[in-house]
Amino acid sequence: MEFGSAENPLLVSVRSGARVSMPGMMDTILNLGLNDVSVEGLSKRTNNPRFAWDSYRRFIQMFSDIVLDMKPTTKEDIDPFEEIIEGVKHAKGVKQDTELDVDDLKTLVTKYKEAVKVKTGKDFPQEPQQQLWRAIQAVFDSWNNDRAKYYRILNKIPEDWGTAVNVQAMVFGNMGNTSATGVGFTRDASTGENIFNGEYLINAQGEDVVAGIRTPQQITLIGSKRWAELQGVAEEVRKAQFPSLEESLPETYQELKNVQEKLEQHFKDMQDIEFTIQNGKLWLLQCRNGKRTGAAMVQIACDLFREGKIDEKTALKRIEPNKLDELLHPIFTPEALKTAKFVAKGLPASPGAASGQIVFFADEAKKFAQSILVRIETSPEDLEGMNIARGILTARGGMTSHAAVVARGMGKCCVCGAGALNINYKQRTLEVNGKVYAEGDWISLNGSTGDVFEGKLQTQEAQLSGDFGLIMDWAEKYTRMYVRTNADTPKDAQIARKFGAKGIGLTRTEHMFFEGERIKAMREMILASDLAGRQTALAKLLPFQRTDFEGIFEAMNGYGVTIRLLDPPLHEFVPHETAQQQELAQEMGLTLDQVKQKVHELAEFNPMLGHRGCRLGITYPEITEMQTRAIIEAALNIKAKGLDVKPEIMVPLVGNFNELEHQLKVVRKTADAVFKERNDTIHYLVGTMIEVPRACLVADQIGQIAEFFSFGTNDLTQMTLGFSRDDAGKFLPYYITNGILKVDPFQVLDRQGVGKMVELAVKNGKSTNPNLKVGICGEHGGEPSSVEFFHIVGLDYVSCSPFRVPIARVAAAIANLTNP
Amino acid sequence: MEFGSAENPLLVSVRSGARVSMPGMMDTILNLGLNDVSVEGLSKRTNNPRFAWDSYRRFIQMFSDIVLDMKPTTKEDIDPFEEIIEGVKHAKGVKQDTELDVDDLKTLVTKYKEAVKVKTGKDFPQEPQQQLWRAIQAVFDSWNNDRAKYYRILNKIPEDWGTAVNVQAMVFGNMGNTSATGVGFTRDASTGENIFNGEYLINAQGEDVVAGIRTPQQITLIGSKRWAELQGVAEEVRKAQFPSLEESLPETYQELKNVQEKLEQHFKDMQDIEFTIQNGKLWLLQCRNGKRTGAAMVQIACDLFREGKIDEKTALKRIEPNKLDELLHPIFTPEALKTAKFVAKGLPASPGAASGQIVFFADEAKKFAQSILVRIETSPEDLEGMNIARGILTARGGMTSHAAVVARGMGKCCVCGAGALNINYKQRTLEVNGKVYAEGDWISLNGSTGDVFEGKLQTQEAQLSGDFGLIMDWAEKYTRMYVRTNADTPKDAQIARKFGAKGIGLTRTEHMFFEGERIKAMREMILASDLAGRQTALAKLLPFQRTDFEGIFEAMNGYGVTIRLLDPPLHEFVPHETAQQQELAQEMGLTLDQVKQKVHELAEFNPMLGHRGCRLGITYPEITEMQTRAIIEAALNIKAKGLDVKPEIMVPLVGNFNELEHQLKVVRKTADAVFKERNDTIHYLVGTMIEVPRACLVADQIGQIAEFFSFGTNDLTQMTLGFSRDDAGKFLPYYITNGILKVDPFQVLDRQGVGKMVELAVKNGKSTNPNLKVGICGEHGGEPSSVEFFHIVGLDYVSCSPFRVPIARVAAAIANLTNP
Repeated sequence: MEFGSAENPLLVSVRSGARVSMPGMMDTILNLGLNDVSVEGLSKRTNNPRFAWDSYRRFIQMFSDIVLDMKPTTKEDIDPFEEIIEGVKHAKGVKQDTELDVDDLKTLVTKYKEAVKVKTGKDFPQEPQQQLWRAIQAVFDSWNNDRAKYYRILNKIPEDWGTAVNVQAMVFGNMGNTSATGVGFTRDASTGENIFNGEYLINAQGEDVVAGIRTPQQITLIGSKRWAELQGVAEEVRKAQFPSLEESLPETYQELKNVQEKLEQHFKDMQDIEFTIQNGKLWLLQCRNGKRTGAAMVQIACDLFREGKIDEKTALKRIEPNKLDELLHPIFTPEALKTAKFVAKGLPASPGAASGQIVFFADEAKKFAQSILVRIETSPEDLEGMNIARGILTARGGMTSHAAVVARGMGKCCVCGAGALNINYKQRTLEVNGKVYAEGDWISLNGSTGDVFEGKLQTQEAQLSGDFGLIMDWAEKYTRMYVRTNADTPKDAQIARKFGAKGIGLTRTEHMFFEGERIKAMREMILASDLAGRQTALAKLLPFQRTDFEGIFEAMNGYGVTIRLLDPPLHEFVPHETAQQQELAQEMGLTLDQVKQKVHELAEFNPMLGHRGCRLGITYPEITEMQTRAIIEAALNIKAKGLDVKPEIMVPLVGNFNELEHQLKVVRKTADAVFKERNDTIHYLVGTMIEVPRACLVADQIGQIAEFFSFGTNDLTQMTLGFSRDDAGKFLPYYITNGILKVDPFQVLDRQGVGKMVELAVKNGKSTNPNLKVGICGEHGGEPSSVEFFHIVGLDYVSCSPFRVPIARVAAAIANLTNP
Repeated sequence: MEFGSAENPLLVSVRSGARVSMPGMMDTILNLGLNDVSVEGLSKRTNNPRFAWDSYRRFIQMFSDIVLDMKPTTKEDIDPFEEIIEGVKHAKGVKQDTELDVDDLKTLVTKYKEAVKVKTGKDFPQEPQQQLWRAIQAVFDSWNNDRAKYYRILNKIPEDWGTAVNVQAMVFGNMGNTSATGVGFTRDASTGENIFNGEYLINAQGEDVVAGIRTPQQITLIGSKRWAELQGVAEEVRKAQFPSLEESLPETYQELKNVQEKLEQHFKDMQDIEFTIQNGKLWLLQCRNGKRTGAAMVQIACDLFREGKIDEKTALKRIEPNKLDELLHPIFTPEALKTAKFVAKGLPASPGAASGQIVFFADEAKKFAQSILVRIETSPEDLEGMNIARGILTARGGMTSHAAVVARGMGKCCVCGAGALNINYKQRTLEVNGKVYAEGDWISLNGSTGDVFEGKLQTQEAQLSGDFGLIMDWAEKYTRMYVRTNADTPKDAQIARKFGAKGIGLTRTEHMFFEGERIKAMREMILASDLAGRQTALAKLLPFQRTDFEGIFEAMNGYGVTIRLLDPPLHEFVPHETAQQQELAQEMGLTLDQVKQKVHELAEFNPMLGHRGCRLGITYPEITEMQTRAIIEAALNIKAKGLDVKPEIMVPLVGNFNELEHQLKVVRKTADAVFKERNDTIHYLVGTMIEVPRACLVADQIGQIAEFFSFGTNDLTQMTLGFSRDDAGKFLPYYITNGILKVDPFQVLDRQGVGKMVELAVKNGKSTNPNLKVGICGEHGGEPSSVEFFHIVGLDYVSCSPFRVPIARVAAAIANLTNP
């Protein structure tokens, strides 16, 4: 067949064959050889003029954009092709491209060609060879565009590799009843079952399968029968109207079946295969590792191992750690989802599925047996109610907002930052797109997708299969780093142990200050006018803290428990509403004005960078004394029960040697006093949270007196990037949508910036203290790509919320296999 | 004489002879050889039992603290000696140590010795040799204490240097009428006049001269006569009661005069000499370069040069750049200060002296011909009033608060953070320690010391002598870096040029947005609901900005002018009080609720890390377009007048390559459009402010497309250290008082932290762009130690507020001479 001729309109596709996929590299498949003559040939040959003309107009647009450089460079520029098609649709009074008929498409082609003439001064090239060479040239040129160059610098890809160009002939599945096109999977992508499956359509092109105009048929007979049963289609009807490929083209089917077996055998993984049958001849268009659900991923990896096709290490590397999350939480049943009424979408802040009745205030979470707490945003005071509610929904805040962080810590379903919600606390209503929901109305949240649904949906519990355990055993076997958990309660600690956590990397003591009598004593401490007053209040807090720590030590028997000294600014603990301030004033014997004055004094312009962390412990050493006493006394009490307690006291927000030295002295002195009183001792460590950029730069100094570093990558990200995570919602989504950033740096560690700081700190710290224990307790500790980075830079452990522990364990093991 | 015997109670002093002074090194002079026997001998020999016993009790305390390790290590520990002396004073009913008599001192000695026995279990050592050797050992030991070790690590001082120990015999000036003690200066420390001067006392020890109990006499006859004239003392009285040393001990005087000449000749600088005359024999105790005023410093350096004693380079190195400040601003007359009534002390935020009538609101600054603006804190809206007022006084905020920064920029006297002030805006009163000042009352501020005085004080203008010009010429000759200025107005630019600024390193465009019609257009832009609305408002701002830039370009003819694109978060521009919001709503045709809603939406938790800097220019490219247009149009207009315009457009808060690339495209495209419209072009640079830590880490990437870097060390300090400068007042003073930090990092660049980031950024940036121009425009650009650092790391220029330009120029030259 001649390339681009009228009789035999062979088309070819051109794309980059660069060794790695790079932004900016020309990765569009251009179906070349289309022109005024061949489009007519294509119409006849495929018996589908609409397909031919639509292909032609798409080709003109793509070729012009990419090869003729007509693509708009900024958002403000007008795209001439978009303008034309909008005009044609408007004139015809339709909204969808699919509503355009052959004549409309012909009009588009004419107008497109005019636009090209206006812009370039030349006619759209009709000569197939010219189209081909220009396209090839464009691919080569794209190696040197700015984005590709920048990407190579970033990723250290050699400049001299260059790119290849792939030129392939096209085949057609729409040439009659012995032609077909389809997609097959060597195993079930949804369940992992070892069975060949997939869909096809006779006399169709690839677009038709996905377009949903015709109902695709099953490739295998067994698949077809299963499908019919599910759809309630009678066997006669199935056989007549929706036969399997196995039945309709049995020989080609057998060839395909053999090929898929060979392909899986070759690639040793479940394959996603695209094929076209042209006049009875089978062509494979593409094959790649198939996408799959979490459950299928685990099943397939373990099956391939048991079938002897891959070894343990390879099987483990097949696990995408994040997908394990699907296995750890309840989900909505597929049936429930089919009829569910979608309400709004927010961020998938904490996975799982939950249904409940709406409450708007944390202290009313108990109002219903199953409640969903709906807030504009949550605050530390809402902690108890968040724990009671089945799920949490907020209108504001990102993936690391208070609601998101706390919910993940609790393993509780949470959707946050659902901007479409209008919450009216006074009227106790939630309005979305004109529809109003009241307190007590049922809603359902999918924390894994961010979807919010109306009403009560059926859920099913997480089922941790035997294969899940096998994966965890492999993770244990091949990891270098171990995994700890961030836990503020014995319950969290127990969940995390069940998932394989070896110790606690972060206990936030301040979360313990919000309940009942505790918050009163805390406020009394804050409002005290002198040291004596603060000490009296702290003495009231001491037994609470001690009891809390006892519970945590007991739950983590045998493993290290890192407890962070008080970190947040004090104004987080005082009431900001007049009624509560009045109440506090009465309790404290102060005037309302005095309370208001104190609250005002505590306010800060940028609290994240204010009077918090060790700055509190230094200006009020009595706080550090009380907390140290509570930790050491609790440790001795639990030791007395015969358990193995390993306390690690962590000083937050250290930026220089003197700060840590100051706090170290207070801690050591207090601990020595307790040891003397009790006539008993216990080994404990004192270290620091590395979260201020400066700490990384002077980690050699700090390392001299710290027994461990734990990276607080949340704050380190905030300060290194200058992004307030509570405010980044104003520009971060825009940044990601517009390619300024690839990912949210609060979710995936920014290796070049924050990672560089971490690397520096590890290197500096170990230069003066080779025995320094180094871990990380920020949100990144449960994110696989970040875990890999922490492995590479030599951390001893990562710590994450309990439900992320299995994910981190697998990620750590894979990181070790990939970066030995 | 035998060391420590009763008859000849020779005393010796012991101190460290380390090559550099180090914290922790034993630098106390211990007068050894004191015991129960020699103290009696000392009493007789000096005929001063009080002196002898007071020396003895001080010796016991010092020796016990330092050699016997009895010094308290934390604030909470009780100092036994302080407890004893307080008890004795209490029993006697006196408050001052000086009110204790010989018997009291003997009691103290007894009790001190008991305390030593209790603490150490041994008697206080009576054997002089033992005292001596233990003291020597203590000095050697101090080489290895934690503080000294840490200091050596910090300052890269070799461990193996070790320390020497100095042991010296004591002499006594209180042995009769041919004994004396005094202090002399080889030149006048106040004026710089080349005349030997000083004070002495017959039959006295050093303490007596400074104690102020007896009136010290002048050393020289001419000095004595001048003194008498000033004091209104008749010549007969002077000669009889206050004779000069030249008259009372003429031979010894002559010897002293010869010695001081030799010393100055040797050290080639004005010497401060301490001497004792023991029975007619002259002993020199110490000599060192004398402290002097700014005026004396300049005069002495230039005189020594003209006298041929030192060369230009040495003379220049004699200048402490900060002291030049005294010469650049008006000061209170010495007479006025003598009778001034002190009110409160704040931070010396911006130097100079000012008197005026109190106003509490910026828009009322015009109310009096000479006003002082008194505020809790200032905000950008107060700009005009600040400019009108003679001086600014605030109750809150540090050295880099808004008031301080703006005042320094204006060269206007400012005292800030005067915590004792209670300002009541409603009643328009200022209350300090119970005394109330009302609007219209006169007060006076000394911005160089932070002192606030009552009433109107006489001031005298700055007098830039010829020697000042000579110093500046030398600075010009020997500097490598050049100095630019931070200027937002043509007036500032002119002042800075007068002081030798070569260009503008920072023009903050936002300061231009607050006046009259501008703020209206700005608010219209912020409140606009779509792009078209914003563009309409921006079109109104364009002519204002263009005119502003024209003025600045004209004033800086021939030099580069760096203009920073919009930086602060938008909520700084909207009104926060209901009345103003109501007004705005009416103007904009909105409801009050709509305005309130928008203001609420703009609020941020941590605005420093929020939606500001290039994040604004990226999400609203139309702002960058308008500002670029204004800059380029202004540049072309001024070029058309025949002047030499060199615009440099600076993108703020860049943290990654893509941000700068985005803004760069907008700028280039806009400039090209203007060039096309005007049919004219001009060369301009586009660069970025390096102020986010991440930018330093990826400066190699950013450097590829930036034509210059300008370090914003204010924000870089905030983020690297995690210190909000607006909130640091809550812990920074405590940190400095308690030795956690040596200096305020917002004043003196933190070399180990922020400096390390700057160094990294310069290195990284130049690695990909060797032609990169690198400067600094933070507050540190006018601080000598920071300027030295910037020289060392290879910056091309520093930029500072106009009145700091001469200081920076000298600092830069000295840095070059010291670090060639």
